[in-house]
Amino acid sequence: MRAIIFDRQLKFVRNCPRPRRKCDEALVRVLKAGVCNTDLEIIKGYMGFRGILGHEFVGVVERAARRDWVGQRVAGEINCACGSCGCCARGLRTHCPRRSVLGILNRHGAFADFLTLPLANLHRVPDSVGDDEAVFVEPLAAAFQILEQVKIGPSHNVAVLGDGKLGLLAAQVLHLAGAKVTAVGRHSEKLAILERRGIRVCLRADGGQGYDVVVDCTGLPGGFDLATRLTRPRGTLVLKSTAAAHAQLNLAPLVINEVTLIGSRCGPFPPALAALARKRVDVLSLISARYPLERGLQALKAAARHGALKVLIEMASP
Amino acid sequence: MRAIIFDRQLKFVRNCPRPRRKCDEALVRVLKAGVCNTDLEIIKGYMGFRGILGHEFVGVVERAARRDWVGQRVAGEINCACGSCGCCARGLRTHCPRRSVLGILNRHGAFADFLTLPLANLHRVPDSVGDDEAVFVEPLAAAFQILEQVKIGPSHNVAVLGDGKLGLLAAQVLHLAGAKVTAVGRHSEKLAILERRGIRVCLRADGGQGYDVVVDCTGLPGGFDLATRLTRPRGTLVLKSTAAAHAQLNLAPLVINEVTLIGSRCGPFPPALAALARKRVDVLSLISARYPLERGLQALKAAARHGALKVLIEMASP
Repeated sequence: MRAIIFDRQLKFVRNCPRPRRKCDEALVRVLKAGVCNTDLEIIKGYMGFRGILGHEFVGVVERAARRDWVGQRVAGEINCACGSCGCCARGLRTHCPRRSVLGILNRHGAFADFLTLPLANLHRVPDSVGDDEAVFVEPLAAAFQILEQVKIGPSHNVAVLGDGKLGLLAAQVLHLAGAKVTAVGRHSEKLAILERRGIRVCLRADGGQGYDVVVDCTGLPGGFDLATRLTRPRGTLVLKSTAAAHAQLNLAPLVINEVTLIGSRCGPFPPALAALARKRVDVLSLISARYPLERGLQALKAAARHGALKVLIEMASP
Repeated sequence: MRAIIFDRQLKFVRNCPRPRRKCDEALVRVLKAGVCNTDLEIIKGYMGFRGILGHEFVGVVERAARRDWVGQRVAGEINCACGSCGCCARGLRTHCPRRSVLGILNRHGAFADFLTLPLANLHRVPDSVGDDEAVFVEPLAAAFQILEQVKIGPSHNVAVLGDGKLGLLAAQVLHLAGAKVTAVGRHSEKLAILERRGIRVCLRADGGQGYDVVVDCTGLPGGFDLATRLTRPRGTLVLKSTAAAHAQLNLAPLVINEVTLIGSRCGPFPPALAALARKRVDVLSLISARYPLERGLQALKAAARHGALKVLIEMASP
């Protein structure tokens, strides 16, 4: 099969062996995949991953032990837990220390004709959700994770920093939750996507008395500093990005203002799928470009370009 | 009156004017004061404070509008709120943006014969609590603040990092709360204070599966890194120190492990006074040295010395 492989360098391979399906896993024929900033970080060395890249996808189950899954169009959760350690026993499957992660850790990813994932990780995609939309289930779920971690409601003033892919999804999800959301970004054309959904946007943050909740989706050290300044005393700062994590940072405002900082990663698929099915989140406006799998290297380059939003890789049978 | 003043440089002044008492304030004759690391940071430029240093004290009310306070032995909360802003209205008086803070921000401190504080800030010291112990009410309250912010009980594995003054107090307070506490430090003679209270101590952290709660009292960037490594997925990291806050830090583990980091500052006096009254916390073993007010400069030097714990400044009438 065809695949985009990272092995110290990035390459397109035409004759990659298909991944072998374990008995509890499905073989999934990938229809489309999305490029995430994590993919771009991996190419720079993050996680030390070697293998087929990609973890955002929609596909069709080709083979599985349970026949009712075969032929189903699916999205898939990326963390594959061992199911038997203490972490899994406590329900923290996404934190299983023995986990593999699709296209990120010890498991080949989605920039290929086929991938394997445990059946337990798969979610059927409703007919009302198109392939282009379904590619967004995984990052949208990461945005919904914020609601799992922080009590957010109509009385809360929330700032979402960053108008990249995750920022645009997080702002929409928190707006759906009824919060008074202000999206802070640098690109009026990106913020316009949110304005059309009735979300307040600004190019410069106006702290005032401080926000109850600030979500940092900038992936930049400067974004973190701004986030600490904008969070009110005893407020909550949600940190979504690992990209800019290694930097000269000042944590003193967190102590002085007794801020709660919450690290937030992968999230629940069902609310993401439901929001897409009901067209309550605009993801299609986030698509910047599409490339066939053969041109996957260009796709990754395009995704790295300043101002790019979601770049799709489309498999379409060879 | 006599006072230790910081005004770009540190000096002992014999003829400093007494602070003027406002109508809602008490004039307090200071008996003893404690040197805190914050005092040492201020001398290095922290907060840009100019004035009489010191915020940990025990004293006797000399004058007050309410006569029942006069003659009372008291400890005092250090944050003086405006009482009329939005922050105060929400009950966040320690975070009032217009607050003054004893010996730290816009208010002369406790290294002097007299200080003023609002009556609302004062707490009577029970007869069973000696002067030496009462000096510890303020830092002990800061340790009790952890219990206000994090639900900690007998099922929790808690690591307290740092065997300085605050670490030794925090470990004892969390042990009182019933948690399984491990104190991690570098000085066996300091850790011995905790061992005598039945607290598990170690010179090297043994992470294992990770602690439910890690309290960083090291005041060092290395301590923060260790804290992020020792906190279990979805665990809680309590950050007590602003000293080492400006540093090269890696926040990625907080995101990957979805850790909750809680900045923690000043705390409630009543549980601290109650714990001292019942002799449930050993603070006397933390006293490294005593200096008369005239030798306050030496006291601050002694407090800055490696390995020093609490240095007391004793006023004793001139």
